[in-house]
Amino acid sequence: MEIALIRVRTLDNIEAVDRHGPLIEKFFPGLRVKCYCIEDQPYGIHDARSEEIARPKVIKLAKKIEGSDAIIVSCAADPGVEELNEELPIPVIGAGKSLACISRTLGDSVGAITITDDVPDIVRRELGKHLLAWKKVEGVKTGIDLESEANFKNALNAAEELVRLGSPVIALACTGFSTIGIAPEICKKLGVPVVDPILAAGSVAYNLMLTREGWNSLKD
Amino acid sequence: MEIALIRVRTLDNIEAVDRHGPLIEKFFPGLRVKCYCIEDQPYGIHDARSEEIARPKVIKLAKKIEGSDAIIVSCAADPGVEELNEELPIPVIGAGKSLACISRTLGDSVGAITITDDVPDIVRRELGKHLLAWKKVEGVKTGIDLESEANFKNALNAAEELVRLGSPVIALACTGFSTIGIAPEICKKLGVPVVDPILAAGSVAYNLMLTREGWNSLKD
Repeated sequence: MEIALIRVRTLDNIEAVDRHGPLIEKFFPGLRVKCYCIEDQPYGIHDARSEEIARPKVIKLAKKIEGSDAIIVSCAADPGVEELNEELPIPVIGAGKSLACISRTLGDSVGAITITDDVPDIVRRELGKHLLAWKKVEGVKTGIDLESEANFKNALNAAEELVRLGSPVIALACTGFSTIGIAPEICKKLGVPVVDPILAAGSVAYNLMLTREGWNSLKD
Repeated sequence: MEIALIRVRTLDNIEAVDRHGPLIEKFFPGLRVKCYCIEDQPYGIHDARSEEIARPKVIKLAKKIEGSDAIIVSCAADPGVEELNEELPIPVIGAGKSLACISRTLGDSVGAITITDDVPDIVRRELGKHLLAWKKVEGVKTGIDLESEANFKNALNAAEELVRLGSPVIALACTGFSTIGIAPEICKKLGVPVVDPILAAGSVAYNLMLTREGWNSLKD
């Protein structure tokens, strides 16, 4: 099944540098991902203003995509996802809603780490009463800041604080956490289930593929 | 990762006849499933009374299981799942909650087909306002009845009626639908996403495995 993945951060040479598509292709056999990005947002989405600017760009880009069976919007704020699902004939999967749904299935209460001054609306809404606590990673203003060694450590610390507050599950509420591959590191350090937003979105797309292509589609 | 899967229907020669474990192993590389079943319920769970009888048996069985990293309870009513998650140190994943969560991520409103006179409580609760409509399969009293050709057709008809009512996504609210492998057939006939409860539960377990075993755990 062909997936179009929309990055909300402008990337040069996107096929070479994107890590979200390869992550999905590695773990979900049969999904093929083609990566796209919106224009003129090198710092991605990191606050209400940048989200507002990105939303129409995501919608415009998604409407131009051809030959895909589903679209994944790679941002935990799910910009444009609701609108696109009303307009497009193919499913549009948001990383934020996927993250919230897998997280609440893994635990009755969930702690979320973020790069923004609040939990993205869609994640808050979909977790509902299951959102126990959340924590912004110190020293981080955009997803790109996560890529420094110091902030990787700060993200581990944020998760640790949530576990100390009693979170039995950690939700990574920014797809920048997928870029730096921190989910397994948090799990190794703290021993709790950690939900990665790109793997969550990949799981939802995979469910779609498995029923669409039939159960004999993969080799036994 | 080792998964214990608990069937709520008593099966002789379970390793040979179970179809839920093999379905998960086929589509989620790295998950190994060992199948168990509760005693003295050859007709499984099919109403409030049989659910009430099964719940303590599921709990008792789950507590005796050793050497597993997670447990999947293979029933859309999630009998005992909440209690077990409070008591056991390993995650216990219910097919019902998994089904509801993947379904609501795939569409804002969901139609559910059932074998019971209502939608299982956990599915109703987790879908919330996203449950658009539901339909019991005609001619079916227990999950076993799904295995006749006539009732396979009745199940297709129930899904068709929900699509006619405007359901953009069909949730299969009984793991008996997984046994007969009807998800891809509904999808082929009606062209809408269909969510299978066993694949949904497998997806949740797979997310657990991917962060626990690290992203280098599978071959590139």
